[in-house]
Amino acid sequence: MPDFSLDIPISFGHCDPAGIVFYPNYFRWFDRCFHSFLQDRAGGHRALCADLDAKGIGLMDVAARFPSPATEGDRMRLDMTIADWGSKVLRLEYTGYVGSRAVVEGHELRGMFVLREGKMRAGDLAPLRARLEAK
Amino acid sequence: MPDFSLDIPISFGHCDPAGIVFYPNYFRWFDRCFHSFLQDRAGGHRALCADLDAKGIGLMDVAARFPSPATEGDRMRLDMTIADWGSKVLRLEYTGYVGSRAVVEGHELRGMFVLREGKMRAGDLAPLRARLEAK
Amino acid sequence: MPDFSLDIPISFGHCDPAGIVFYPNYFRWFDRCFHSFLQDRAGGHRALCADLDAKGIGLMDVAARFPSPATEGDRMRLDMTIADWGSKVLRLEYTGYVGSRAVVEGHELRGMFVLREGKMRAGDLAPLRARLEAK
Amino acid sequence: MPDFSLDIPISFGHCDPAGIVFYPNYFRWFDRCFHSFLQDRAGGHRALCADLDAKGIGLMDVAARFPSPATEGDRMRLDMTIADWGSKVLRLEYTGYVGSRAVVEGHELRGMFVLREGKMRAGDLAPLRARLEAK
Repeated sequence: MPDFSLDIPISFGHCDPAGIVFYPNYFRWFDRCFHSFLQDRAGGHRALCADLDAKGIGLMDVAARFPSPATEGDRMRLDMTIADWGSKVLRLEYTGYVGSRAVVEGHELRGMFVLREGKMRAGDLAPLRARLEAK
Repeated sequence: MPDFSLDIPISFGHCDPAGIVFYPNYFRWFDRCFHSFLQDRAGGHRALCADLDAKGIGLMDVAARFPSPATEGDRMRLDMTIADWGSKVLRLEYTGYVGSRAVVEGHELRGMFVLREGKMRAGDLAPLRARLEAK
Repeated sequence: MPDFSLDIPISFGHCDPAGIVFYPNYFRWFDRCFHSFLQDRAGGHRALCADLDAKGIGLMDVAARFPSPATEGDRMRLDMTIADWGSKVLRLEYTGYVGSRAVVEGHELRGMFVLREGKMRAGDLAPLRARLEAK
Repeated sequence: MPDFSLDIPISFGHCDPAGIVFYPNYFRWFDRCFHSFLQDRAGGHRALCADLDAKGIGLMDVAARFPSPATEGDRMRLDMTIADWGSKVLRLEYTGYVGSRAVVEGHELRGMFVLREGKMRAGDLAPLRARLEAK
């Protein structure tokens, strides 16, 4: 069971001259899926950052592969799973399906960036985890 | 009553360093609203173009104004109305609301581009209108 | 003579399944042209806003028309002209050319947003104009 | 020595509410760098695909990490290196620098997709390599 899912109707404007999704759009959807999850569980990124005195829950590393193409008119279901809570790194895994066919598989590593003694650092994730699991 | 509406949850990645929607995104949503309408009514842009021997139902002119800002976490309802069927120009009007507050108001003029005697021209819209009103 | 120009090489990823520029991209380029002008003349948007105690130099109204298409491999020159300095509204006019052929013509109306007595308002543009004309 | 480089001035509209580059933009720049390279060496993606009877030189896999942030007003130099020509997979490596500081490091794996007996397949890359190394 995924921790969160988005339904993405693939539109004309998401596609390139080859008629398939222009690949950077998949990362906009990964990011939107994570932020929608924050909204759903804990009032959203802005409120969470204010509560936790953080600058942002941002990206450290990302990857994806594209086993098959998606095109105009397809509906993609994007599933997100929290795969690992490290002390300073959160691993999120994503799979996008059109019907039962996988069109994208990838992951993000995210940290919670905090300003401590004038420097930006990756902060302890325990308070973030507590908020997201509270619901 | 609008002819079509989309629900757009405003996400972190749609916003700029001022914390409000980066304005070109509104036009991606206008375009997506029109294409979703084509999907809903007549099988989508690609199928319609194949049926009507057209290259595309594309933009000639567009405008918008922004009476108030939208931000991360807002949900926008985007309403589209077919305001006028000219013989070669279709006028679409859009209004986006967050709650009862208008955040964008605009229009698109679109034509149906066809290749005739080696030249791209704005074709007669009557067959397109017939398809979209058939449902 | 334009007040500022950008050279935009049109790439595969800027184009849609019809093989021409996906129109919201033109507005990303209008915005980038204006911000590059601020960078060139006065150290950029962020520095200007800090100096002038403003939240942003943002959009009120925008329009464009598309007299001919641009495609992958074209180089567009985008010219920007300051057409009018009102007391609270700045009018910028844009034309994009591929060779001598116009592909986009449009304008933006921008204001300088300031927080006064807890409300966001369109501020007086005279200090902004002084900075931009100082060079 | 990289095989190709692009100069990317980071603009306001590339950044998110945290004031740093919204990460999917890095992938738009990876893609644009590769397509600019094709333009420079061999007349561009469209001409190459026509010559080689291919549907596209598309993405199979991509990754990036972000050692430090880039913001409005920064100029990024994006270097691309052809790291490996496999028989059906091309590996491209990218590093983006602001001054001497790396802001993004990543790679793309690309294939040349061809239609053979009604099926889309990854074609032999030797003819593509010959074109790109001919100059």
